[in-house]
Formats: sequence, C-alpha cells, structure tokens
Amino acid sequence: MHNFNSGPSILPQEVLAQTANAVIDFNNIGLSILEIGHRTNWFVDVMEEARALVKELMQLNEHYEVLFLHGGATTQFMQVPMNLLDNNATAAYCDNGVWGSKAIKEASVFGHVNVVASSKDKNYTYLNKNFTVPQDCTYLHLTSNNTVEGTQWHQFPTTNTPIVADMSSDIFSREINFNLFSLIYAGAQKNMGAAGVTLVVINKNILPKTNRNIPAIMNYQNHIDAGSLLNTPPVFAVYVTLLTLRWIKKEGGLAIMQKRAEQKSSLLYQTIDELPIFHCPIQKEDRSNMNAVFYMQDENLQNLFLNVCKENGMIGVKGYRTMGGLRISMYNALPLESVVAITDLMKDFANKN
Amino acid sequence: MHNFNSGPSILPQEVLAQTANAVIDFNNIGLSILEIGHRTNWFVDVMEEARALVKELMQLNEHYEVLFLHGGATTQFMQVPMNLLDNNATAAYCDNGVWGSKAIKEASVFGHVNVVASSKDKNYTYLNKNFTVPQDCTYLHLTSNNTVEGTQWHQFPTTNTPIVADMSSDIFSREINFNLFSLIYAGAQKNMGAAGVTLVVINKNILPKTNRNIPAIMNYQNHIDAGSLLNTPPVFAVYVTLLTLRWIKKEGGLAIMQKRAEQKSSLLYQTIDELPIFHCPIQKEDRSNMNAVFYMQDENLQNLFLNVCKENGMIGVKGYRTMGGLRISMYNALPLESVVAITDLMKDFANKN
Repeated sequence: MHNFNSGPSILPQEVLAQTANAVIDFNNIGLSILEIGHRTNWFVDVMEEARALVKELMQLNEHYEVLFLHGGATTQFMQVPMNLLDNNATAAYCDNGVWGSKAIKEASVFGHVNVVASSKDKNYTYLNKNFTVPQDCTYLHLTSNNTVEGTQWHQFPTTNTPIVADMSSDIFSREINFNLFSLIYAGAQKNMGAAGVTLVVINKNILPKTNRNIPAIMNYQNHIDAGSLLNTPPVFAVYVTLLTLRWIKKEGGLAIMQKRAEQKSSLLYQTIDELPIFHCPIQKEDRSNMNAVFYMQDENLQNLFLNVCKENGMIGVKGYRTMGGLRISMYNALPLESVVAITDLMKDFANKN
Repeated sequence: MHNFNSGPSILPQEVLAQTANAVIDFNNIGLSILEIGHRTNWFVDVMEEARALVKELMQLNEHYEVLFLHGGATTQFMQVPMNLLDNNATAAYCDNGVWGSKAIKEASVFGHVNVVASSKDKNYTYLNKNFTVPQDCTYLHLTSNNTVEGTQWHQFPTTNTPIVADMSSDIFSREINFNLFSLIYAGAQKNMGAAGVTLVVINKNILPKTNRNIPAIMNYQNHIDAGSLLNTPPVFAVYVTLLTLRWIKKEGGLAIMQKRAEQKSSLLYQTIDELPIFHCPIQKEDRSNMNAVFYMQDENLQNLFLNVCKENGMIGVKGYRTMGGLRISMYNALPLESVVAITDLMKDFANKN
C-alpha cells in the first residue's frame, strides 16, 4: 500500500517492527514496554536518549530544554499563551490556515491577540512576506507548515520578537536554524511517531513570562524541573519517537530528510503543473514539501480519481474535510517510490480522461 | 517474571500479543494501528466499541457520556475544577493521600476548596467514615483507591452533592453502582491499558457548571459533542484499552474481576498479618484490594527482602518514593499464582530471618 495520510501517517517499517517487538519484550528484559514503570532506569534511559537526540538533530544550543508532553498541538494552542501571555499583554499571530486560526482563538482566552499577518483574503493560498511585529508583542506565533492548506514557510520572518512555531507537520523534515525560535512544538503523529505525545522545545530565557497561577501540569517550568517526568508520561508514544529519531539519525539526519522531501515534492508538483486536469492554487514559492493540496479542473472527476487511487492501494489522497479537493502527504517515511507510483497513475488517469 | 508494578503495570498477555500484531498489521488491512487516520471508519469503530464497552461493563444509564482524553489523572485534577467550579464557588474534597492532595491544590487554582474529610492526622492509614458535605458545595471529590497509601473506599459516602471520583487505580476491578457518581476519571495505565489516555465518564446533567471561558481542548462539552474525537486522540492507547475491555468482558466482567481481587488480596493481607516480621498499618476495613502497603518491623531487613524478590523475578515491590516501605500491586491482569509465589517467598524469608 502507498500511505499518503496527513496524520496519523506512515512510519518507517523498521520502526514498526522494533515497536511490535518491544510490546512483547522490551530490550530483552522479559517485560513489555507497556508494563514498565516510568521511573525505572529502563524508561528514564528512553526519555533521556530521546531528548538528547532531539537536541543533536536540531543542533540546539545550551539555552534549550526538550520536553515530551501529553496531548497534541491543540493542547499547546492553550498551553503556550497560558505560560507566556499575561491577561493584559498582546501576542502577535499569523493567520495562515485552520490550525493557526485555532491557535489564535485559544490565545484570546488568555490575553490580547494581534493578527499581524493573514492570507485569508486569498483562501490561505500564500504566505505573507512583508509584515511588521509591533514592539509591544510578547511573542510571534506561526505555523511552519500548514497541513490543511499546503503552504510552508521556506523563509521565516525576521523579527526581534521571540518566535513560537507550531512545527507539527514538518518537524525533522529539513535543516533550519532552530535556535532562532524561542519555543517550538510538534504533535508526534506525522514525522515523529504515534499520536499522544507532543514535542516542546523551549529556550529557557523565555520563562517565566506571566504572573498567572498556572495549573501544575500545564506549567512548562515544572516539566523542565522534572526532566520531562512530572507525571506518568505517554511511555509508549515517547518510545516510538525515540525509535523514529534513531532512524532519522541513521539515515543521515535532517539534511537527508530535506533532500528526499525536495525530490518527492518536486516530482509531484511538476506532475500537477504539467497535467491540465489537475490544478494547484498555492503560490509556487510557498508550496509545502510535506502536503501537496490540489484540485481537479473538472470536479466531477474527483471521485473517479479517488476510486482509482484506492484500487491501486493508494490511501489518504482526499483533502481535508472542510477543504475538499485532493491532498498528498509526503512525510519522512514515505518512499520516493510511492510518489513515483501516484504520479504515474495521475499521468495515466489524465490520458484516459 | 511477577510484575507487581503500581502503574504502568501488568497487562493481560493476550492483550500484549494482539497489540503487537496491530502495530504491524491492524485488522489485516495492511497498515499499522499507528498509521491510520483517526477519522477513518477503522478507528472510529475502535473508539465507538471502547465507549460502548465502558457503558456496558459499568452499567451506566442514558445520562452518561464516555470520553477518552489525552493525559493522565493529573490533567483531570485541573480539568475537573476548570469545567465545574466557578471562581467564587466551593468544592468539597477528601484528603486521603498524595493524589487527593494534588487534586486539592489544582482545584484551589480555580475556586474555593473545603476539605471535608482528611486522614492526614494518622498518616493516611484510614478513610473517614462520618463527615458531612455542606449544601453549598458544587461537588465532592474523592480518590476511590489510594495507590500510594494502600486504602480503598469499600463504602462510599452518602450525600446529595454530586460526587467526582478519581478511580485511576481501581477502575474495572469491582462492581459498584457507578450511576451514583456524577463524574469518574481514571488514567489507563493500571487496570485499563497503556499510559497516555484517561477515561472520563460524565453525567451530562452536571454540565455546564461554570461561566468560565474554558480553552477548547479542556471543555468536556466539546469532547462530548465531537464523540470523543475533538482532535487526534491517543489512537494507540485507546486501542489497547479496547483490547483490555474486551478481555475483561470475556473473562466475566467486573464480578469476576472483583472475586479475583478479593482472593489475591485476602491471601496477601493474611500472610502479612500472620508473619511478625511484616506490618501493615492500614485499618483493616479500609485496606485496598489493589495496592497492599506494608513495612518490615526491622527496617534493616528491607533491602535484603527486596533483593530476594528481585532474584526471584518479582518486580515493583518497593514502596512509593516518598513513603518507603513495601507495596504489592494486584491489578486485574496479575494472576493469583504471582501472589501465591510472593507469599510463599515471604513465609520462607520470615523463617530464615
């Protein structure tokens, strides 16, 4: 099968094999990964190796802490302003799609929001290039890759304001100077592992930013002080992340992930642009290397195309429920062969229709 | 090995085998449980069966909704008052151990707390029998089984105030009239599955109790409206819970779980009480059938005893980090043979020392 799911999505086959083994017998200790205490050396070693690999792969400097927290990015939509935004303070937000909009809504529960950039006027088909962040903003929030709309920041805004980025759908897919960000978060279920854990990378200098009385489990500082073991963590999901991080390192790190992503997305976008029956509305320089969002010129052909995909073992090609159209996700674990297979099928379908 | 861990803890062997298979190939669809979208029929069926099994096993009436949410009980310490307790309102809390105390602390972030019962005076070695809940209290919160201290409510307080219970460590271990509770929550990693998901059972009539502007991801009503699929749930952890619930039903439901728990705990407490080198400080009628907490009369023997346990493949016997002493957890999946094995070892140890 070819798995183009947008998330939860494809994982490396060897990670799945190692995971299945650990469910039966973790590290040959005679117990399942699901049955060991989170404060045993067995699991503390898992957590520490995973945190160290994140630091290594992202080349983070000594100011950064790495946390693995319960929940998904949606929890961070709340947790970020709860920790960083005072009632009377203002945060700058970029409004470039469904998820960014949800983040804005949550921030407004805690303080003021200034939408400093929005591409809503053109249905989120591009990213804003020139905008300024007022000096009084506590932080600037953006979504590095818009999973639903198919855009990706290839050049990040330059600002003195601390940047907070939701990197859920392109984390570990490219080389970036991650030290330019004050806080990065990413749900695991795309490039990193299984749903149920979120990576949070924090520049410690950004804490504390608020005098709010923060519930213990939501307080970043508590998690930092506890070495990401404040309460029982999502043990299994952290372990799958560790295996995936090991795989990324073994394959050659972020440089190789980026090279592969560019190969796959170039082939796909070239095919879309060359075939008149397909149409990608996203401005070329903003197109995502992770999620290609496109449409059929003749809407009536869409169901036929989706059926042909299904018959050929290609799943996850349908667009986001509120968007319609088509979406092909090309995360780290998706082999080039899958993109070759679907572009061949697209060409064949175009010839026949 | 004999796994007496307090959580994450032992799971049924057949659940582990089924889980490992699903990590490679879920339901023979050619994809891993980790790679399927949460809005596919494949996963929606998992979620719906799990929710229905909870209702069936707990014999809940039509007023109840079943949710599987991210995080552990610690998240619920915050989420319960965030949803139910207004700034100026008061909630009644029972203070019977480490976890209940943490729940009290979190509730006080949101409103007023009235500690209506506490066994702190005798180091949490008993549960309060006669206490009243003032009429003006929004709800009464208690911990049905105190994992760290080794006490368990065998008879719940009678009150007109809605009862909220943390049942993390004895959920599905006994027959209770669950319809007497307004809200029940339980982290999965003891009797129910893998860490990273929490069961929340709500009597809908208790919502909404507050005018607070609740962050979207924390609002119970949002999760109810979305059928427990508000955002990407912890897919894997929900699936392991489903397999465990199926196992509980197949074995004979809560009546059988209770019978086995009573068999195991009777044997263990009888052994402790008969052997002068051991000592259980918990008042007899309040002793937990899940977690037996006890001490050695001669503290110097404790490390020797723990070493003998380890040599005999018995793990998880050490008490909670702040408590010292010994603790043997006997969750649903622990076979009677494991309790027989450790009581034999205790008798042998007593003879030799």
